Amino acid sequence: MAVYTDVAADELAEFLRGYDIGELLSYKGIAEGVENSNYLLHTSKGSFILTLYEKRVASEDLPYFLSLMSHLAERGIRCPQPEKSRSGAVFGALMGRPAAIINFLEGVWPRRPNVAQCGAVGEGLAKMHLAGQDFPLQRANPLSVGGWRALFEQSAAGADPLQHGLHALLHAELDYLEHAWPKHLPEGVIHADLFPDNAFFLGDTLSGIIDFPFACNDILAYDVAICLNAWCFEPDHAFNVTKARAFLNGYSRERPLTAAEQDKLPLLARGAALRFLLTRLVDSLNVPAGALVRPKDPLEYARKLRFHQSVDSIRDYGVTASGVVA
Amino acid sequence: MAVYTDVAADELAEFLRGYDIGELLSYKGIAEGVENSNYLLHTSKGSFILTLYEKRVASEDLPYFLSLMSHLAERGIRCPQPEKSRSGAVFGALMGRPAAIINFLEGVWPRRPNVAQCGAVGEGLAKMHLAGQDFPLQRANPLSVGGWRALFEQSAAGADPLQHGLHALLHAELDYLEHAWPKHLPEGVIHADLFPDNAFFLGDTLSGIIDFPFACNDILAYDVAICLNAWCFEPDHAFNVTKARAFLNGYSRERPLTAAEQDKLPLLARGAALRFLLTRLVDSLNVPAGALVRPKDPLEYARKLRFHQSVDSIRDYGVTASGVVA
Repeated sequence: MAVYTDVAADELAEFLRGYDIGELLSYKGIAEGVENSNYLLHTSKGSFILTLYEKRVASEDLPYFLSLMSHLAERGIRCPQPEKSRSGAVFGALMGRPAAIINFLEGVWPRRPNVAQCGAVGEGLAKMHLAGQDFPLQRANPLSVGGWRALFEQSAAGADPLQHGLHALLHAELDYLEHAWPKHLPEGVIHADLFPDNAFFLGDTLSGIIDFPFACNDILAYDVAICLNAWCFEPDHAFNVTKARAFLNGYSRERPLTAAEQDKLPLLARGAALRFLLTRLVDSLNVPAGALVRPKDPLEYARKLRFHQSVDSIRDYGVTASGVVA
Repeated sequence: MAVYTDVAADELAEFLRGYDIGELLSYKGIAEGVENSNYLLHTSKGSFILTLYEKRVASEDLPYFLSLMSHLAERGIRCPQPEKSRSGAVFGALMGRPAAIINFLEGVWPRRPNVAQCGAVGEGLAKMHLAGQDFPLQRANPLSVGGWRALFEQSAAGADPLQHGLHALLHAELDYLEHAWPKHLPEGVIHADLFPDNAFFLGDTLSGIIDFPFACNDILAYDVAICLNAWCFEPDHAFNVTKARAFLNGYSRERPLTAAEQDKLPLLARGAALRFLLTRLVDSLNVPAGALVRPKDPLEYARKLRFHQSVDSIRDYGVTASGVVA
């Protein structure tokens, strides 16, 4: 949760004059999104989200994911749509940062997702993957297997002080995954960060998928693996087979996993766990003085990694292969 | 800016069933208020603010300031009005904390108040003082002169490490103000924390005064002095005589200052500076590990204190006595 950049009313009013979204009535910095500064605007025409893009979101990537949101929304995926300025731009500059205005999606994110919500997010993820198939832009995933060694090198010295044996775990896992990472699975647009706080619900109905700055082109089933980690573990770290079954079945109803995807899912889940373990470790070692952000616990993902190391096949995630075969 | 307590959707939905304010559509933690956790709610009936009261706000004081907001709003002061629950209560409990729902006021707070806004807030403060005259409840001000020595004792050891000579400044000022503090000035309900982030504007028109947890019964002109410090200094620490004149004239149009109030205003301004210097010093020495709040700079108020020590009379604030005489 964060507001990194305070926006002055005068600058905001000036920025909004470039849009046809009404007169500014109020704006509040909101405690959502760990990468950007977000404000909820009320104007005479409705509610909007203003995002100022901070570190990790290079402005050259903005056209990719702002266009992606437009593309997905046009295909019926409930996700934020960028408002175009009077000159047709989907982003501009405010307080020295790239800034975009998107429409406001109602809904609440589930602090403790239930089984039905896990199923709904699986279905929503698959629909998003299908809707992204004809998206024309490309963006490589800087946080997939090719990016992990650099993260490891940045954070290696901090591993054992955090937990004895963590350095060896990371080192061995990285060596293993670099060799074993699958090369021929179906690819497409992935969200790459679909945690519960990026999924809005009204009741158990998915009302929106938000926060696309990590979206990229990568292995589709890697996105499935990221969600498996993010949605199907309990606060006490136990893997919830019922939620995993609901999630995987929900996904497969829309887009059945191929036999190769099913086969590689435990491996992809190890990779997804390593990715968040590494970025959290880097973040925990680089908290700036006076930061308003509480770093997330890297060890949560060390536990998940160890769990997936013990998994033999997708059956350990609660599904019979036949239920999700393409 | 802070959200101290994360509110789970289930608990919130349950809490809202006690109110007749519609179905919950969304809620966002907002980065406003340093003492409480605040959420902006959208329901099927409109926008509301949910506040969870954290430290420093004792639940026995809630009836005072929630009733005060109702009282002031009934008398035409634009301030938040608490929503009553189905059982008629103005607050309840959520996530183990006292919690209230208030209506949402549109407007933006000025990061750099202009002269017209300083005048408007002066006028608004005076109107609030007048509207509070018949408010029946009483609450002593724990952060007036009687409370400063305890704050000094809590923070004395941290003074000189922050700035050489600060301990002596605080010690001498406290001794002086305890003896010189006026005893017979007009009293009433004061806001006690009317900083620019607690005043909403639409253009230069004051659209709302918010955040009443420091409200209490005290010397009215002490509230004037608090605002003089909060509104009439520039970011480079210079006192802006034009803004002070606008503020004091705005106040006096609604409620002319008595001769005794004018005479004591520099002294009250020293007290107001000392109060925020002390609480900021205490806060800066007690930042909890992992805090999401950046403590405010105590030394800003040391500079203001030294400025007021150099002031001879209210004329140094840019007004001729005749302009504001009662």
